[in-house]
Amino acid sequence: MNRPLPLTGVRIIDLGHVFQGPYATFLMAMAGADVIKVEPPRGDMSRKRARDGDYPFRALNGCKRGVVLNLKTDRGRELLLELSRSADVLVENFAPAVMPRLGLDAETFMKVNPRLIYASASGFGSTGPYADKLALDLTIQAMGGMMSTTGELGGRPLKAGVPVADFMSGAHLYGAVVTALFERERTGRGRALEVSMLEALFATMLPAAGHAYVSNHVPRRTGNRHVADSYVPFDTFETSDGWVAIVAATDDHWQKLTEAMGRPDLRDDESLRHLQGRIARIDFVTDAIADWTTTRTREEISKLCEQYRVPAAPLRDALEVLSDPHLHARGFLSVQPTDAGLVALPNSPMRYVGSDLRPLTPPPGLGEHTDAVLGEFCGVDAEELAALRREGVIGG
Amino acid sequence: MNRPLPLTGVRIIDLGHVFQGPYATFLMAMAGADVIKVEPPRGDMSRKRARDGDYPFRALNGCKRGVVLNLKTDRGRELLLELSRSADVLVENFAPAVMPRLGLDAETFMKVNPRLIYASASGFGSTGPYADKLALDLTIQAMGGMMSTTGELGGRPLKAGVPVADFMSGAHLYGAVVTALFERERTGRGRALEVSMLEALFATMLPAAGHAYVSNHVPRRTGNRHVADSYVPFDTFETSDGWVAIVAATDDHWQKLTEAMGRPDLRDDESLRHLQGRIARIDFVTDAIADWTTTRTREEISKLCEQYRVPAAPLRDALEVLSDPHLHARGFLSVQPTDAGLVALPNSPMRYVGSDLRPLTPPPGLGEHTDAVLGEFCGVDAEELAALRREGVIGG
Repeated sequence: MNRPLPLTGVRIIDLGHVFQGPYATFLMAMAGADVIKVEPPRGDMSRKRARDGDYPFRALNGCKRGVVLNLKTDRGRELLLELSRSADVLVENFAPAVMPRLGLDAETFMKVNPRLIYASASGFGSTGPYADKLALDLTIQAMGGMMSTTGELGGRPLKAGVPVADFMSGAHLYGAVVTALFERERTGRGRALEVSMLEALFATMLPAAGHAYVSNHVPRRTGNRHVADSYVPFDTFETSDGWVAIVAATDDHWQKLTEAMGRPDLRDDESLRHLQGRIARIDFVTDAIADWTTTRTREEISKLCEQYRVPAAPLRDALEVLSDPHLHARGFLSVQPTDAGLVALPNSPMRYVGSDLRPLTPPPGLGEHTDAVLGEFCGVDAEELAALRREGVIGG
Repeated sequence: MNRPLPLTGVRIIDLGHVFQGPYATFLMAMAGADVIKVEPPRGDMSRKRARDGDYPFRALNGCKRGVVLNLKTDRGRELLLELSRSADVLVENFAPAVMPRLGLDAETFMKVNPRLIYASASGFGSTGPYADKLALDLTIQAMGGMMSTTGELGGRPLKAGVPVADFMSGAHLYGAVVTALFERERTGRGRALEVSMLEALFATMLPAAGHAYVSNHVPRRTGNRHVADSYVPFDTFETSDGWVAIVAATDDHWQKLTEAMGRPDLRDDESLRHLQGRIARIDFVTDAIADWTTTRTREEISKLCEQYRVPAAPLRDALEVLSDPHLHARGFLSVQPTDAGLVALPNSPMRYVGSDLRPLTPPPGLGEHTDAVLGEFCGVDAEELAALRREGVIGG
């Protein structure tokens, strides 16, 4: 028995661009919603980027319809308001000043449709001293403290190599929107809501902040060791073909690890039985494990650790992840044809038992559904569409 | 006019431990839900950790009630089922085999309460070849490819210093639960659902994966530069008192930056006007900016960039973030008393216009509300409570 996906029948107007907004609305689409992506005439700037191609755009905008509206024209703004009349949600991630400057603030929309969820995401939120500061993933990783914790002991602060702040805030934006949809079912009323990147990233800092409070020092960067040595080992080790991560989350894991290593001497060493003892001899513990891993492959070490029930994993690169048999077996990744050949594209990480995953469809061409959508929801006929196109109000 | 928070009246049974589950239920509590944290007799292992104290626990478990149930006893399991009869949601983040082994699988709960949302989070999900693999934040960062992108050019792969995978999957878990609550309002039916850490982290890899597809190479680690040099500059620069991040997301930002630097020669250099030219001379561009930043403070550089509308930010450490005036002005952080002194604790990053943030209350003591909750929802009287306590079924 295949149940419909939970957001079936929900209509979203998606003004999102690049990653934060589009990720939230991608999650909505994959949960069954009807997402209408509204782009300016030049298109979402992530449609084509010099060096990472259209893959991120393709991955985040499947199962959406595409409309081009020029919001710098009066008629373009009117059409957006008209479109919102029958929509459930509007999502935007412009800087906080942009929509109000266009006369497209939450109040204006809520007058047209009091049941609308008007969702805004930005770097710092719409209030407070930093509201107008420009923000990008890197600057949020910097201001949020994350970079201060990342890097080698004694080295300079580093970013996470991937745009964590963009996607972390996108996931929170999704959650906030669906929360307001739930509430609307009970109260009949819509909501304006907002999510800020800086706040969405904050929780990741809790262990580092806790260590700072306890020690009264800013935590050092610790390479791949735990920020507070709360576990030993908790590190990466070089193998004959790359790296593995190994963690003893409990003293029992340490015992099991020494057995996997074939080192009864370490297993029976009372001084290493408990965490505090291993912290005291952390370099000795690290060297012993590294001696073991260096002559074996990532896969051998991972399998042995699995057999002894010790948490461990091979470090994998982007191409290895894209061809991961587990992610393909679960249908999370699926191979899709594109002009540039086959690529593996993701589905949603939220899985509802009893419903199949939504099959992926390609992202819309720029303005591909302008006519169909404006015809269906705004009653615009062919003649007017032609006029609007001539006047530069719509595109596609 | 202050509207109730959107999840007011929703009751959650929270079997979460450490970060992933508790973060999801913290977000529910701060959205107004009544969260009942169910712990084993020894308590959530994050209650007290050697080196980061109780700060993460305190930050994630405020505004919850606490019950101790021994699920290794028949009566303990019965009481949990009884408790679920009037609940809306059950959240658990044990390894996938744990709850079924206790006879506490989703089907059992749904028979007792067909309106229940039964939400599971784990490292790899409950199906597929890795379902039984142990997982922790570090091993997911390793397997998910994130570490392969983090680190110095030519250096070894590094973790993000903070547990991104835990919190990223916690945010998705929140979203999935609320989605199912929304659906239940429409259909009257509950759901089992799941979120995996590996899948929740995947989207962050999209730019790196795109670069791998375009270049047919695994992306190099690039220190603090963009993985695909999609922006130049996109880097950190040393100042007289730390580091700043500066990004030219557009060619216009580069022009503005050269003006902030007082370098008309760079502004007028045609070879640097467009991204491709700056990529070709990236070391020259980097050195020129570094010469400018090195004699100024983080704050001076940030202010100048703000004035010229160039995205930039100081790199801050954990203590600086905890005392950030913006986060305190917005009420996201608030100073709370603890036995160990004053600490700054976070609220939810999801902000609903028209509703005040929920005031923080301290996390429950271990089993603080066992009697009250079992009395209220399971009709257990004082005499039986005493007997259950003697038999080790309940605690607190």
